[in-house]
Amino acid sequence: MSVAATLSPAADVRADFPGMVTGDGAPWHYLDTAATAQKPQAVIDAMTRALGVDYATVHRGVYGRSAQMTLGYEAARRRVAEFIGAKGEDEVIFVRGATEAINLVAASWGMAQIGEGDRIVLSMLEHHSNIVPWQMVAERTGAQIDVCPLTEDGRIDLGALEAMMTPRTRLVALAHVSNVLGSVLDARAAADIAHSVGAKLLLDGCQAAPRMALDMAALGCDFYALSGHKLYGPTGIGVLWAREEILGAMPPWQGGGAMIDRVTFEKTTYAPPPQRFEAGTPIITEAIALHAAIDYVAALGPDRLLAHEAGLARQLRDELRALNSVTLFGPEESAGIVSFAIEGVHPHDLGTILDEENVAIRAGHHCAQPLMDHLGVPATARASFGLYSDENDIAALLRGIERTQRIFG
Amino acid sequence: MSVAATLSPAADVRADFPGMVTGDGAPWHYLDTAATAQKPQAVIDAMTRALGVDYATVHRGVYGRSAQMTLGYEAARRRVAEFIGAKGEDEVIFVRGATEAINLVAASWGMAQIGEGDRIVLSMLEHHSNIVPWQMVAERTGAQIDVCPLTEDGRIDLGALEAMMTPRTRLVALAHVSNVLGSVLDARAAADIAHSVGAKLLLDGCQAAPRMALDMAALGCDFYALSGHKLYGPTGIGVLWAREEILGAMPPWQGGGAMIDRVTFEKTTYAPPPQRFEAGTPIITEAIALHAAIDYVAALGPDRLLAHEAGLARQLRDELRALNSVTLFGPEESAGIVSFAIEGVHPHDLGTILDEENVAIRAGHHCAQPLMDHLGVPATARASFGLYSDENDIAALLRGIERTQRIFG
Repeated sequence: MSVAATLSPAADVRADFPGMVTGDGAPWHYLDTAATAQKPQAVIDAMTRALGVDYATVHRGVYGRSAQMTLGYEAARRRVAEFIGAKGEDEVIFVRGATEAINLVAASWGMAQIGEGDRIVLSMLEHHSNIVPWQMVAERTGAQIDVCPLTEDGRIDLGALEAMMTPRTRLVALAHVSNVLGSVLDARAAADIAHSVGAKLLLDGCQAAPRMALDMAALGCDFYALSGHKLYGPTGIGVLWAREEILGAMPPWQGGGAMIDRVTFEKTTYAPPPQRFEAGTPIITEAIALHAAIDYVAALGPDRLLAHEAGLARQLRDELRALNSVTLFGPEESAGIVSFAIEGVHPHDLGTILDEENVAIRAGHHCAQPLMDHLGVPATARASFGLYSDENDIAALLRGIERTQRIFG
Repeated sequence: MSVAATLSPAADVRADFPGMVTGDGAPWHYLDTAATAQKPQAVIDAMTRALGVDYATVHRGVYGRSAQMTLGYEAARRRVAEFIGAKGEDEVIFVRGATEAINLVAASWGMAQIGEGDRIVLSMLEHHSNIVPWQMVAERTGAQIDVCPLTEDGRIDLGALEAMMTPRTRLVALAHVSNVLGSVLDARAAADIAHSVGAKLLLDGCQAAPRMALDMAALGCDFYALSGHKLYGPTGIGVLWAREEILGAMPPWQGGGAMIDRVTFEKTTYAPPPQRFEAGTPIITEAIALHAAIDYVAALGPDRLLAHEAGLARQLRDELRALNSVTLFGPEESAGIVSFAIEGVHPHDLGTILDEENVAIRAGHHCAQPLMDHLGVPATARASFGLYSDENDIAALLRGIERTQRIFG
């Protein structure tokens, strides 16, 4: 499938990303977008303005520029709410990243709602950020973690999930898209399964948010975590979305300025969400730059991004299959992430040789060690696409793999 | 005292700050640096490069640009360590801000080390970020909070502090510089008092870090929290420093990628500090921009900044005292922060009128409601200086105050 057919501005969009060239000005074949996305100039410009001529604090100033900055910060919250189909902006909490979003749910909702003998269901393909916070909750509360197995091709097995539900299951926490395999969860089905026993569904949307149109109502989940830097925005910011009625009942997690109603040494009362969960000076300029990132992605169209990157993933899988001694992991249908192994070549060595060809892939456990154990490998090589990826990147990767095979052959 | 005598490049440094002009290009009399500092162009440039041509993730990539970014991120950690006189960079944790730094200490060290009947000492002038996290610990553990009173002129009363120490006192947590009054704590004396009963000393260094030379060994404290955006760096980043041996014994707080040693569903083990406390993709570009901010501040010389801003504070206090109907709060010696009230004028009204004259002050409770209760006011007007402040800012403020008095007179 040609890039042009799925994302017609692909050739042009590359020019929007100053990071997509090497130091020598050569094209950089960046295939590590699942780790972090490059930033369009519009995001960098938004950051520059916010740190420069527009800079002031928010929520507190009585002067005009602070009022303007507050409008900008809250407009970013509304833009996120609109982009993900939230009911309203009060459902959107700005956090440091998806990891903090999940930790917030674990520490606030989890510690209040999960008790001894309760059950938390995760899957075998989760990222550590959607495992470790729940292990901490389980350790503190005496709850138990159940691990949902995968289908043979590496998708979360919804039949098995359904069979695992018990009346004590309080939470199902799953990756919307696997960061290793690119597998896409049928989130609506998972929500129905969780809700059938009264459990909540949390989705780790790190890899889905940059690749798919999101609609919280249609997904049917209760919590959604996403990361700004994977969505073409800056580092240091992410989003927790939760249903208004759940958020409203959640106790505060971090204490400090801006999240309070009234502080005395005798008794402190808290502000309603979202402020209740945003202690301290907010992540101001990052929110404003994330707004620009969302505008950029929305203008291209999330549905087209998925078609574009899934098409590239299909093409790469087909080409890799045609080579000797390559093992492919994960399902045929991937949201743009392809994990593979080359017989006799450690993924790190592959990555190092590819780097000499200006091809950047990831080699490692991808913060998913239980999945590596399940696949029976210590690491995989992973190529992941972004909206700026194209067939030249695939061709460069294949050339590099062939060279590596010659070196190791 | 003339600005030139204390910070000779003051006239020149102003030009380094693109935010120090109004939309019309007129000088902006920004007197809210205690809320957040404007950014020098060098910080904005560092952010632009890090988000653009240099951008990649850290710690995980096998390709050159990721290795370079990792060097940049870890160089920022070393620069912070050097700037604050830490024993080594492993004592430096990057967090979202000072609020998160204090919450980290409360949730990790506090929940492990503070028990029922133990005592936590705070002062009457603390910022909410150094009150609410300890109230949460006290509520969960059954510990008690003791409130250290102030001297008549608004400094933490070290005599009273000494008298409050008990064998059950586990922690003394104090502002190094008050964000409302500018009072400077004798940190070394406070450390000796805390240590005399085996308690630890935490310093909230938000207002001190941008104004004073810091040396953790000389201060004698055990924990130090500071905020990047108040130190002329970006939003979304702050620093927790803690003694190596204390950090090493602290349990993890947030779980996720990068903070683990090995994850299985049966048992997860954790990385040593600082990684143990940096779950998820780090605050990469912010750390690199904070490095640039510290370079900028260090080149001017922290000791000269204190002399410069304390000199401006003295001058402003003298000028305000000469006006009718002005109440001054806090000690004569201030690190560059002056809180005051004008009879018959609400601070918010003053702030609004000053805004028309391109003078930005803060009006409100400054996230220190217990101090407001102690002062017997709902709010103060606060003028706070930065390294770019000069006598023209004071003159503009005084003109605005006189105009306000005419309007309300």
